[in-house]
Amino acid sequence: MAAQVPENFMDLIREPAFANLATLMKDGSPQVTPVWFDFDGVHVRINSAKGRIKDQNMRNHPRVALAIMDPRNPYRYMQIRGAVTEITEQGAEEHIDALAKKYLKVDRYPHRSANEVRVMYKITPERISTMG
Amino acid sequence: MAAQVPENFMDLIREPAFANLATLMKDGSPQVTPVWFDFDGVHVRINSAKGRIKDQNMRNHPRVALAIMDPRNPYRYMQIRGAVTEITEQGAEEHIDALAKKYLKVDRYPHRSANEVRVMYKITPERISTMG
Repeated sequence: MAAQVPENFMDLIREPAFANLATLMKDGSPQVTPVWFDFDGVHVRINSAKGRIKDQNMRNHPRVALAIMDPRNPYRYMQIRGAVTEITEQGAEEHIDALAKKYLKVDRYPHRSANEVRVMYKITPERISTMG
Repeated sequence: MAAQVPENFMDLIREPAFANLATLMKDGSPQVTPVWFDFDGVHVRINSAKGRIKDQNMRNHPRVALAIMDPRNPYRYMQIRGAVTEITEQGAEEHIDALAKKYLKVDRYPHRSANEVRVMYKITPERISTMG
């Protein structure tokens, strides 16, 4: 069973707040990157491109964690720990466009490069805790 | 040799930007928390209290990572990977007061609880990368 996002923190999911995503390097040490994300009702979904560090890390180690800060109040945040349970190229192009809509208010992601392959990662939350 | 913070990103060190700190749980999975921090010229220093998850994690696994976002521009950030090279109670009370000064503009940290023991962690940066 996926952990549930508390109703009073759903605004951090809907609004264009960034998630700081921790993944694990090959040697097991952590790495953190601010990322765009959305939520499909069960999974936190993020998007990257094939071959990037985040992509390699999530293929090697499915354990990830996120902190999502309220952009208006850094003392209010949600922490999620979970696992990448699906990695797919299917729908990944549409997904980066949906994220561009959420974060940039544009219909199409403007930073595509010709030789990159977009990838979508579905994270199943196992522990969710909130502060503030 | 500690990695150097680039001069054009020193503002993120001086100003009250938050760091998202990734530590490792006992099982090796990551955990992320927004934290206050400062910099002593070599180490990123953070502060917690004895027995908290972050405290336990850094005692068990010294490998950590941070992402420090520009509060005015989420597309500008610095990523740091490194190791906790010192954990000390010495100076930890003064350090939390210094952080309260940086982040809250007050002389004394206002959230002390009677039975907590403050701890300072010094992180030696090994890899620093910047974006934006």
